[in-house]
Amino acid sequence: MSEILPAGSTIGILGGGQLGRMLAMAAARLDYRCHIYDPADAPPAGQVVPDVTCGAWTDIAALERFARAVDLVTFEFENVPAEALDAIEAIVPVRPGRRALSVSQDRIDEKDFLTGIGLTTAPYARIDDLPMLEAALGVIGTPSILKTRRMGYDGKGQMRIDRPDQAKRALELLDHQPAVLEGFVDFEREISVIGARGADGQTVCFDPGENMHRDGILRRTLVPAEIPEALKLDAVLLTGRILNALDYVGVMGVELFVTDRGLVVNEIAPRVHNSGHWTQNGCAIDQFEQHIRAITGMPLGDGSRFANVEMINLIGEDLNGLEQYLQDAIHLYGKADIRDGRKMGHVNRVRPLG
Amino acid sequence: MSEILPAGSTIGILGGGQLGRMLAMAAARLDYRCHIYDPADAPPAGQVVPDVTCGAWTDIAALERFARAVDLVTFEFENVPAEALDAIEAIVPVRPGRRALSVSQDRIDEKDFLTGIGLTTAPYARIDDLPMLEAALGVIGTPSILKTRRMGYDGKGQMRIDRPDQAKRALELLDHQPAVLEGFVDFEREISVIGARGADGQTVCFDPGENMHRDGILRRTLVPAEIPEALKLDAVLLTGRILNALDYVGVMGVELFVTDRGLVVNEIAPRVHNSGHWTQNGCAIDQFEQHIRAITGMPLGDGSRFANVEMINLIGEDLNGLEQYLQDAIHLYGKADIRDGRKMGHVNRVRPLG
Repeated sequence: MSEILPAGSTIGILGGGQLGRMLAMAAARLDYRCHIYDPADAPPAGQVVPDVTCGAWTDIAALERFARAVDLVTFEFENVPAEALDAIEAIVPVRPGRRALSVSQDRIDEKDFLTGIGLTTAPYARIDDLPMLEAALGVIGTPSILKTRRMGYDGKGQMRIDRPDQAKRALELLDHQPAVLEGFVDFEREISVIGARGADGQTVCFDPGENMHRDGILRRTLVPAEIPEALKLDAVLLTGRILNALDYVGVMGVELFVTDRGLVVNEIAPRVHNSGHWTQNGCAIDQFEQHIRAITGMPLGDGSRFANVEMINLIGEDLNGLEQYLQDAIHLYGKADIRDGRKMGHVNRVRPLG
Repeated sequence: MSEILPAGSTIGILGGGQLGRMLAMAAARLDYRCHIYDPADAPPAGQVVPDVTCGAWTDIAALERFARAVDLVTFEFENVPAEALDAIEAIVPVRPGRRALSVSQDRIDEKDFLTGIGLTTAPYARIDDLPMLEAALGVIGTPSILKTRRMGYDGKGQMRIDRPDQAKRALELLDHQPAVLEGFVDFEREISVIGARGADGQTVCFDPGENMHRDGILRRTLVPAEIPEALKLDAVLLTGRILNALDYVGVMGVELFVTDRGLVVNEIAPRVHNSGHWTQNGCAIDQFEQHIRAITGMPLGDGSRFANVEMINLIGEDLNGLEQYLQDAIHLYGKADIRDGRKMGHVNRVRPLG
């Protein structure tokens, strides 16, 4: 697909959570209809699109019907099973491509890829069993973190190991799944870069944001990040290198640790990213529209930042405190039930530049 | 209704064109569902909302069903028949209220209201027949414009009169509908102010924009308008006076002529307005969200301008020239058929302040 997807075409989105919802709203501005595929029967994105298919990720017949009903497929989360993608891709193009998806689905593949292109990650070792873990702890030391290779997000599937004798218990708590042991990175800050690469190879990055987590969940992103300009440029260049190496088409989130020895890549997400929500009120073209532009073959838009923004996630009961944010730009996800740790919405607090 | 409409509630929107579509997208960000009522069976706004009722403005049963399915009603155009509103208002609140609607639905009532609160309009006279028109032409002179009192928009229902002997023909061409004769205003520029008034009486205006028309249809809006700051303040204050006098709740567009004797009010529109589309990419809170905030009882948001914007309407075949605007913020309306004079979309060309 080298031409621009015609207006009026339908984009299939795998996953109907808040990211799919905001992607669909951006797509509507460009006159693309969206069709959501989600296992839930009333996903948040379903409220803003003409079509929803409710189906399991293993329901190949439903996935094929969905694929035949759309002109192009993208996804809001990287853990779509390979079999689902195989079924879809036999019928309709999927963007971003499989390479980025497979790399990001497995923490070992991801780190191998990143170090393979000369970037720095935390020290890591593949862990299949207790002897491998004990040996790795001897090299990487403690404290360190044992993570499942696959399906981890928002701090799930992770165990911190403070002493070597916790190794056995950690493996048990992760159900002996294939894992990776990661050395602890002593970082000053976490930043992220939201990068976009178009079908023509053009690459654009939004300004790096500074992220604050609690309980493994992103709480706030601040732009500008309070780091030297040279470091911001490093972060952007490094993101460009990742996008190019993967021949990527779409938006990607790259999480980075700022350490006294430079930038360390934490992880990459081949999709729009929570830490890029500030772009909705800080840029003419936000990350959601940039993603739609990239996958449809449109040129990327102007993502330069025209305001300072503090993005504040509304997690679970935070939603009940919405009155303190009524002056800010509010983005709610249409989720009826408040649950602990559930992302209910976010607000962007916008201030003039400078 | 003095409290904030609860999240998850449904807002009914009368009219499913591009204004209804953009209102619905703003409402979704605040977790309000929208239900569109429109005589067309696939209106543009229908693509981005969960519910659409297709019904005529005279179908009281359908209007009543619609009213019972929603928590609050607003409208995207001011020519909703009074009978339709009567049926709806017996069941559910309508915002903005009837006063502003009835005033803006009739050009004589509108001018009587405006002059009644001390504002300047074009000289005008009520015209019911040829003798009245001939007498009025003697006072107001030529060139002047004969307009139907009701249902005019985008230059429709208007006849320019250059010589008194054209009076009879002008009345015929307007099918002898009740009309108003308006004197020609010799203006340097046309500007407009998009004002918002909350349920609590708080009033906020966006920066005045400068409008360029062709064939009676808005083509471009520029912010900032190239007029003295004092005149901008006059325009904003005058808009506030209109909003207050009508006890208005919602967003209103006020079109003004800049003349060498000051500002002359051309017309008011009790709804979001084409000349306010620039706010989507020039302000943290745009006119659509401001309207939703006002009618739901939320406080108004920050509508200060953080960028210079040129809004360019895409009329009819303009859409086929979209490639020249691919670098700009694009807003398409999801209309399948290009027709002469039909508003297909707009783009916002954003530049840094200064």
